[in-house]
Amino acid sequence: MDISQKAKVLVDALPYIKKYFDKTIVVKYGGNAMINNELKEAVMSDIVLLNLVGIKVVLVHGGGPEINEMLKKMDIESKFINGLRYTDKETAEVVRMVLAGKVNKGLVGYINGIGGNAIGLCGTDGNMLCVSKKQEEGVDYGYVGEIESVNSKAITDCLKEGYIPVVATIATDKEGNVYNINADTAAAMIAAELKAENLIMMTDIVGLLKDKDDPSTLIPKVFVSDVPYMKKQGIISGGMIPKIDGCVEAVRRGVKQATIIDGRIPHSILIEMLSNEGAGTMFVQE
Amino acid sequence: MDISQKAKVLVDALPYIKKYFDKTIVVKYGGNAMINNELKEAVMSDIVLLNLVGIKVVLVHGGGPEINEMLKKMDIESKFINGLRYTDKETAEVVRMVLAGKVNKGLVGYINGIGGNAIGLCGTDGNMLCVSKKQEEGVDYGYVGEIESVNSKAITDCLKEGYIPVVATIATDKEGNVYNINADTAAAMIAAELKAENLIMMTDIVGLLKDKDDPSTLIPKVFVSDVPYMKKQGIISGGMIPKIDGCVEAVRRGVKQATIIDGRIPHSILIEMLSNEGAGTMFVQE
Amino acid sequence: MDISQKAKVLVDALPYIKKYFDKTIVVKYGGNAMINNELKEAVMSDIVLLNLVGIKVVLVHGGGPEINEMLKKMDIESKFINGLRYTDKETAEVVRMVLAGKVNKGLVGYINGIGGNAIGLCGTDGNMLCVSKKQEEGVDYGYVGEIESVNSKAITDCLKEGYIPVVATIATDKEGNVYNINADTAAAMIAAELKAENLIMMTDIVGLLKDKDDPSTLIPKVFVSDVPYMKKQGIISGGMIPKIDGCVEAVRRGVKQATIIDGRIPHSILIEMLSNEGAGTMFVQE
Amino acid sequence: MDISQKAKVLVDALPYIKKYFDKTIVVKYGGNAMINNELKEAVMSDIVLLNLVGIKVVLVHGGGPEINEMLKKMDIESKFINGLRYTDKETAEVVRMVLAGKVNKGLVGYINGIGGNAIGLCGTDGNMLCVSKKQEEGVDYGYVGEIESVNSKAITDCLKEGYIPVVATIATDKEGNVYNINADTAAAMIAAELKAENLIMMTDIVGLLKDKDDPSTLIPKVFVSDVPYMKKQGIISGGMIPKIDGCVEAVRRGVKQATIIDGRIPHSILIEMLSNEGAGTMFVQE
Amino acid sequence: MDISQKAKVLVDALPYIKKYFDKTIVVKYGGNAMINNELKEAVMSDIVLLNLVGIKVVLVHGGGPEINEMLKKMDIESKFINGLRYTDKETAEVVRMVLAGKVNKGLVGYINGIGGNAIGLCGTDGNMLCVSKKQEEGVDYGYVGEIESVNSKAITDCLKEGYIPVVATIATDKEGNVYNINADTAAAMIAAELKAENLIMMTDIVGLLKDKDDPSTLIPKVFVSDVPYMKKQGIISGGMIPKIDGCVEAVRRGVKQATIIDGRIPHSILIEMLSNEGAGTMFVQE
Amino acid sequence: MDISQKAKVLVDALPYIKKYFDKTIVVKYGGNAMINNELKEAVMSDIVLLNLVGIKVVLVHGGGPEINEMLKKMDIESKFINGLRYTDKETAEVVRMVLAGKVNKGLVGYINGIGGNAIGLCGTDGNMLCVSKKQEEGVDYGYVGEIESVNSKAITDCLKEGYIPVVATIATDKEGNVYNINADTAAAMIAAELKAENLIMMTDIVGLLKDKDDPSTLIPKVFVSDVPYMKKQGIISGGMIPKIDGCVEAVRRGVKQATIIDGRIPHSILIEMLSNEGAGTMFVQE
Repeated sequence: MDISQKAKVLVDALPYIKKYFDKTIVVKYGGNAMINNELKEAVMSDIVLLNLVGIKVVLVHGGGPEINEMLKKMDIESKFINGLRYTDKETAEVVRMVLAGKVNKGLVGYINGIGGNAIGLCGTDGNMLCVSKKQEEGVDYGYVGEIESVNSKAITDCLKEGYIPVVATIATDKEGNVYNINADTAAAMIAAELKAENLIMMTDIVGLLKDKDDPSTLIPKVFVSDVPYMKKQGIISGGMIPKIDGCVEAVRRGVKQATIIDGRIPHSILIEMLSNEGAGTMFVQE
Repeated sequence: MDISQKAKVLVDALPYIKKYFDKTIVVKYGGNAMINNELKEAVMSDIVLLNLVGIKVVLVHGGGPEINEMLKKMDIESKFINGLRYTDKETAEVVRMVLAGKVNKGLVGYINGIGGNAIGLCGTDGNMLCVSKKQEEGVDYGYVGEIESVNSKAITDCLKEGYIPVVATIATDKEGNVYNINADTAAAMIAAELKAENLIMMTDIVGLLKDKDDPSTLIPKVFVSDVPYMKKQGIISGGMIPKIDGCVEAVRRGVKQATIIDGRIPHSILIEMLSNEGAGTMFVQE
Repeated sequence: MDISQKAKVLVDALPYIKKYFDKTIVVKYGGNAMINNELKEAVMSDIVLLNLVGIKVVLVHGGGPEINEMLKKMDIESKFINGLRYTDKETAEVVRMVLAGKVNKGLVGYINGIGGNAIGLCGTDGNMLCVSKKQEEGVDYGYVGEIESVNSKAITDCLKEGYIPVVATIATDKEGNVYNINADTAAAMIAAELKAENLIMMTDIVGLLKDKDDPSTLIPKVFVSDVPYMKKQGIISGGMIPKIDGCVEAVRRGVKQATIIDGRIPHSILIEMLSNEGAGTMFVQE
Repeated sequence: MDISQKAKVLVDALPYIKKYFDKTIVVKYGGNAMINNELKEAVMSDIVLLNLVGIKVVLVHGGGPEINEMLKKMDIESKFINGLRYTDKETAEVVRMVLAGKVNKGLVGYINGIGGNAIGLCGTDGNMLCVSKKQEEGVDYGYVGEIESVNSKAITDCLKEGYIPVVATIATDKEGNVYNINADTAAAMIAAELKAENLIMMTDIVGLLKDKDDPSTLIPKVFVSDVPYMKKQGIISGGMIPKIDGCVEAVRRGVKQATIIDGRIPHSILIEMLSNEGAGTMFVQE
Repeated sequence: MDISQKAKVLVDALPYIKKYFDKTIVVKYGGNAMINNELKEAVMSDIVLLNLVGIKVVLVHGGGPEINEMLKKMDIESKFINGLRYTDKETAEVVRMVLAGKVNKGLVGYINGIGGNAIGLCGTDGNMLCVSKKQEEGVDYGYVGEIESVNSKAITDCLKEGYIPVVATIATDKEGNVYNINADTAAAMIAAELKAENLIMMTDIVGLLKDKDDPSTLIPKVFVSDVPYMKKQGIISGGMIPKIDGCVEAVRRGVKQATIIDGRIPHSILIEMLSNEGAGTMFVQE
Repeated sequence: MDISQKAKVLVDALPYIKKYFDKTIVVKYGGNAMINNELKEAVMSDIVLLNLVGIKVVLVHGGGPEINEMLKKMDIESKFINGLRYTDKETAEVVRMVLAGKVNKGLVGYINGIGGNAIGLCGTDGNMLCVSKKQEEGVDYGYVGEIESVNSKAITDCLKEGYIPVVATIATDKEGNVYNINADTAAAMIAAELKAENLIMMTDIVGLLKDKDDPSTLIPKVFVSDVPYMKKQGIISGGMIPKIDGCVEAVRRGVKQATIIDGRIPHSILIEMLSNEGAGTMFVQE
């Protein structure tokens, strides 16, 4: 790459750095980017770099595979209802240990190890997530929680002091019961409460495609009002639905843009945020 | 109790409340007070009340019994060397999960449930505890850590914002290895770094006794310089040694006073801090 | 008193200390508590202690007996109209000297002598009280003033700097005439202007009684809207009327509660403010 | 006076206004300027005007004639030792009433009446003057106090809020005894503690004269080190000694300049401070 | 002049100094006061003195004679249309050089040389003046600009830091074209944007006269609503029209008063601002 | 350029952006980059972009060619002594007009036109440059000035408010004489006073070359202590000497690094500051 190309990248990037300076970005971390070591390294490095130049990054994570592994080790059987894990009291306790103890503090340690300064939180800390038992007629999922409200003070306090908050999506109700919460939804609700500039959902797909077999038909930008129609058409379907519902909800509640990006490409966060190219599919208000 | 007695308690207490206002207190929580539910309730209530009137309380905890229970459930054998648990990589991971995931977030939930506002941290958060492998000639304890330095910023940031920081004493080294750390030592080092007004070590004894069989021989105040002599005399012995070494270390490094109190008496923290009576044995500089 | 009782008093008191922290309390000081030395000592000690724990206390005082004594010494005859002292120019000057010079600075000296930090003010300082001649058809009371408005800046400036303002209720009009002002009314008006949390009127009675001969029939709480009815019934009568009118006026103008307490009981201020018991009769809005 | 002359006065005055802006000036008020009404009006007007343009003015006053008058009214005999009034307990109480009650609050009322904003203080307020009984071998003056230290916080707090502090020079010791203090000395000590820019002592003379019968021999400026010699020569003598000793003491302790001015000339304060002419005799360090 | 007269000038001036303290004054400098060296010295001295006592002074200047001289030296012919100079590109460039380079920096140097602290700005600095080409049907004046909006931040930033901003009235449009702007109009627009306390227009006349041949018929104060009538009557005519239109415009947009003063009298600014006399003719809202 | 290359440029640049954030950079602008329009556009764009991401940029400029042109137009003969222009009074005035009026305000207009926010200053503004006549034995250069001291407050005030200060290197002495100052020297002195992070001197060469005919022998980094030796060897010679002396002087006085870069390459400032590559030759302390 010659000097003029380099200069071009920088000339393009600087206005974005200005745009995002002192603004808040929520990254929902998961999928391949959480399992593959090289990808994990690139994500964590991106987050530390963005934080370095004054962008406030919040990392929200789940941890499905590690929960399964632990339940297996402890001989606790997993029961599923409508594809959702039935979470009894014991399982909820295991989920908390794994998410808030192992995964969360592991990510904090990783970020700090490469020069960042993270603090690990869960929904209980600073009364961040107020939850109730998920209600669905005729079904009992056990200790699966729905967020009633978000108190983002603990997160903004961390951001104000320069930390990267890493958030595990478990919470406690007033009686002390532990609940597991869907991480995509939690990331969206947190981003909304923070009036974030951008919610970035890491996925294992290229983005929304007009023709799902042709990556060249990527849809770069979607108005949230068009989502219902795209669901009908089948452009949005299956496992993408909760993520995209999260994006829509976040934008509706005041997040400037929500983007699903391809977590399988190294540094896709940096490209999405600091180049004209963007990545994946962005959701915005009209 | 009549009004004049009540007035007397208040007249006595108000100067202490003034004295501790905006000052930092580190409470090492453990022993019976952690197992017995009534005692636990009284401790947590005391902490929330002290915080309410403007005293900055830091709660440091261990969690021995719950770790054992979990290791048993996971069929991991416990090996002991010189009375200390040999901690292999897998065990260290379990310790982290239990301490930072279960016990820590459980205490945070408890405090928040009775009207407090806590945040749960471990030694990794905000690079709080910098550790290395415990060195002892001829012995390998595995992942048992020694604190090299304390960076208390994450704690003081929480205190500044009005939170009660709850600290689990595990940490990570630069390579990402997880270490278990003695909670008494950690509490002492943290109190020292915070230049705390008071370090309160909860124990299951009345305090230091001249005659160990006669509770009426309680020694209320000890100069740290007298501790070596009291060890020789056998007044300090056995399981008390690490706690009292912690007290001495803390006072030597600038903590105004360190007190071992009887965690078996409900509200012993409140009595110790806000009455002329005091409780247990207090360690100070000459 | 054993430890658990002590702990109970503290557990009860701490939330009140929190509640009143940085809030303003106006105490109208007078009656027996001003004459009896032991009571005086307890009142001043209470005020210094409350100030110590961050409560902003304003002391408003009269000084009837000392004025009489001085007029006698100076051979100035006292003339009364409808039970009110007729105040000529010379008498007004004497009232000022005694209230603002002797009583006020004497109280300031007393408070400072027991470790407080008071400043003595009168209605003239910082243009605090704007007064006019009391108007009543067919009667001329001479230099008896009615408060037209209160400028509380001098008081809040003192409070901001941590002083206990002690206020003598005399004032000057634009022409430089000195006026004597009823201290109960002045205390109420000052409390209202300060939007005080509590106005405490010290009296020489237990409180309002349903049956005035039976102290067990104390009425602990009265809605200000019920006062007219209680006057009709004779529950409120005689010398209590101006004090209770002051309470009602203060509450109507935004003071959270106004309480008449029994100044003959030592430390009744402390008990009223920091225990569940309360003391005397409290006036509030519905 | 034509425009160019007016312009000249202003061109001269503006740099002085700048020089004194936000600086502190202590005026010792007494003598004819306190008795004659026209002079009093001019002094008070000067003080309000100086305060108006951002100069911090502190007024310190005595009140000899009014004390005598009151003692007479109360039939208290005045006893003098070495020309100093012997002050018994009763007399001390009268002095306090007259100075802190009548004179002080009277001046405050006067200043506020012409648009200023004054607060009246005495040495007891905010523990301003710490005094002890005047010691002199073989003589007992009764309750005549000597200043041991000045705590100027109450004054600076008033200045910070824009008030003109008016100070009566009486004080209380730890036992609550009231002491009368020489006002010249008190003004000097207060000016020193405030590190005032200027101490202005109002007198009833033109200033120091080389030939005491010839006003044209006024000495405009004296180095404090020359004072002992001038005393020997008789240029400084009699009633001027305490005033000039006060000036010397103030300058020695850090006051930039101390000036005795002729209080019999209207607006002499304004002329002294804001013109090239100056007035009276100024004392400075070499 | 004797002392009492001096005192009178000061007593009169101090309330004005208070009134203008921290307020903003815009002085339009031009005419004889710019050519005559003694007058120039008096103006600059006045400005430095006013600034010294905390008044924020903005100096706006033109520079007609020096522009003519330079154009002549460079052999550029001056063409006039309706009495206004036709400004071609080359002329505009010369105007910029002379005003922003020579006159502006010359004044800055002069002010700084007598102890002030000035900064020289033109309409381009900090995007202060947004201009467009002056539109008039059937006429093309070339690069003569009309102010569309004023961004006074560069000026207020200078004032905040204590500088005297000196403003040359040239500006640039988005395409980089340089425009000459009428200095009277610019001063008025800047004063309006700054919500100045006073706009002072220096002229070469005594002020508005009822009878233009009789200086004793000076009109000291004019309501802006009376200006149209005075134009009809011929009291306002000729070269005064743009100045007075500027005054009216400024007052209409929120400037408290606008005054045309006689720049031929030394220190007329000081007299106008700090004496009861005033000078020239003042324009105000009813 | 593919995504991974782009990501690489960004990953490299972000730490530099962090490094320079809120730091001050002085750019000496001149040579080809001032004459060629494309280069000028790239320089101005770089400066606006750097400012955009929070780097404080100061632009110092000369203007030789435009001065010559103006002198020619005005028929003023240029006289040279030892290669330096002899500057008489008239020439000095022309230099001021051209530099401070034409070039300076032209650059300010250019920067503001592309979205920046610049303010144009010269050495007279805010008493920035204190100069005296250049002294050299046996030679008189006329009004050529040497900097005696730099008062950078006007510059830091501009930087604090977010402006890009553009500085013309002319100044005035106490007598009001105008002096021309070498721009390289002025840039170095200003950078030193500002304790700048970096001084960038734009030149028309690649940098220092070991073999002046072989661009591949570029010396990327020089310790300032090696400069005398390099002069002896002829590596540093001719027109580069004043620039490199400026670099050495700046580094000696505390500038972290001084760099001569090739102004003929577009965006060389951006490449130098935000990539690992650097550009030209950098001077540092050992």
